Amino acid sequence: MRVFNFAAGPATLPLEVLEQARNEMLDWQGSGMSVMEVSHRSKAFVAVAEQAEADLRELMSIPSNYRVLFLQGGATGQFTAIPMNLATPDSTTQYLNTGAWSKKAIGEAKRYCKVEVLADESASNYSTVPAEATLKYSADAAYVHYTPNETIGGVEFPYVPATGNVPLVADMSSTILSRPIDVSQFGLIYAGAQKNIGPSGLCVVLVRDDLIGKARAGTPPIWDYAAMAKEGSMLNTPPTFGIYMAGLVFQWLKRQGGLGVIGERQSRQGGDLVSCDRFLGLLQEPSGAECALVDERAVHHPESGSGKNVLCGSG
Amino acid sequence: MRVFNFAAGPATLPLEVLEQARNEMLDWQGSGMSVMEVSHRSKAFVAVAEQAEADLRELMSIPSNYRVLFLQGGATGQFTAIPMNLATPDSTTQYLNTGAWSKKAIGEAKRYCKVEVLADESASNYSTVPAEATLKYSADAAYVHYTPNETIGGVEFPYVPATGNVPLVADMSSTILSRPIDVSQFGLIYAGAQKNIGPSGLCVVLVRDDLIGKARAGTPPIWDYAAMAKEGSMLNTPPTFGIYMAGLVFQWLKRQGGLGVIGERQSRQGGDLVSCDRFLGLLQEPSGAECALVDERAVHHPESGSGKNVLCGSG
Repeated sequence: MRVFNFAAGPATLPLEVLEQARNEMLDWQGSGMSVMEVSHRSKAFVAVAEQAEADLRELMSIPSNYRVLFLQGGATGQFTAIPMNLATPDSTTQYLNTGAWSKKAIGEAKRYCKVEVLADESASNYSTVPAEATLKYSADAAYVHYTPNETIGGVEFPYVPATGNVPLVADMSSTILSRPIDVSQFGLIYAGAQKNIGPSGLCVVLVRDDLIGKARAGTPPIWDYAAMAKEGSMLNTPPTFGIYMAGLVFQWLKRQGGLGVIGERQSRQGGDLVSCDRFLGLLQEPSGAECALVDERAVHHPESGSGKNVLCGSG
Repeated sequence: MRVFNFAAGPATLPLEVLEQARNEMLDWQGSGMSVMEVSHRSKAFVAVAEQAEADLRELMSIPSNYRVLFLQGGATGQFTAIPMNLATPDSTTQYLNTGAWSKKAIGEAKRYCKVEVLADESASNYSTVPAEATLKYSADAAYVHYTPNETIGGVEFPYVPATGNVPLVADMSSTILSRPIDVSQFGLIYAGAQKNIGPSGLCVVLVRDDLIGKARAGTPPIWDYAAMAKEGSMLNTPPTFGIYMAGLVFQWLKRQGGLGVIGERQSRQGGDLVSCDRFLGLLQEPSGAECALVDERAVHHPESGSGKNVLCGSG
């Protein structure tokens, strides 16, 4: 019996992906080795990383002026890396506080730059998002940061903030790949892999070309976007097994028909709500006796400040 | 046919470990899930991490006043994290430059503190180590850093620098677990996992209690030793599969009889030299037709500055 984990942290992966990983664990591509045992600089592994990037670009229709980075340190690492790369100590940044993850990102950013909290939904115990019309973006801000889906409070934005020329930065750990998005609306998208992409220990960053190359002194090289882009995410040894698994998930998503089909299937399954995080489990979840859930999904139906129903994440 | 990779980067793992990972890929401990799919905060996974730490403590006889941390970002990340945790911008640190890895560590440390290069073996094209008697440690140094085995130049220290009260910091990525060491001689030991411990994407840090809790402002939380020690290395989602695999390798090493037996077997195999990095492959290497090497090991026999034969790493 397969069990589907919808609890915090790492989550369900496609059965076909796990089966492939199992089947080639001792002999990957006829190499006589596990993929974990080959050099990250070997032709065979570089091809894996390049194919993973190409497939992600295809799935998400990532424009050519965006870099795709495979990093370590999780989304929590990016809470640090983003202000170090995109802001100076004197820059003002704007953050939307809509839950536990936003709040952590804000706390960390305050150590590196000026932070203006543009919206604070703590009064509703993080069950609301701000009404779109109330958000006043500053043309001088280095960037605007938000968390499209908050998995703990369980609240999702029904809109993408229209920040104009100010780069929009989004923590998509729990939404990436669950439906099509327009990447060009964002300056930077980041996602810890463990919910929607693959095993933990990998963080995917999509960043627009004009935003890289300005990392402040003291930025760790492994998080310097320009340095990592130049080295194809291999300035140091990357998490090779995580990249391999992510690549298998990207290929599985392509076999399902891509993100358009994925988004539609989720909407049908969830009725009037979309539980976008851990969608890899939702998509596979068979009925009745064939599966068991480790945890009940905590499903919330809060009203947003904008008066719309807020789409839900799983707790 | 199993193939043994002795090239740069990730390396051979024990066959038994890969077989176990394969066999429980779809149903780990009867959970109906892969270990990759379970929450890092679940009882079952926390037990894995705790057992891995306990087994590492037993294998290396780690004293109780040392913390064991499972981090992300590799040894390259620690090139940054070490000065941020152990030195102030005004501190003087002492580094021994004996090869490509030392040099990278020095370059990074210079961004965060004062660095005195206590020995520089570049004139020999990194085929030598300094004579022990020539090293003058400063009682005021925040720490002394060295790389016991340099995999690119292929030179290994035949001694442990006796730094007295100054904490000794060692990059043991290519030597850890290959033989017994006296941990109490070191203030901090770090090792990227991909050579001697498990898959890439995990970095093990052993640090003495009195050295933590002094991280400078701006240290990324995921590399703040005190914060990570307090959270059992789970301040954020850890690389769960990497920790699981490392745990299996530790158990395999225990089944071999521990590091004393491992060190003896290597010495016998290598004759008068010990190729300590990628020893997991060396230990398993069967004869003749049963195996193939991806790369010839580059074996050097340089003379050290101290006049002793230098033990060799593999290139």
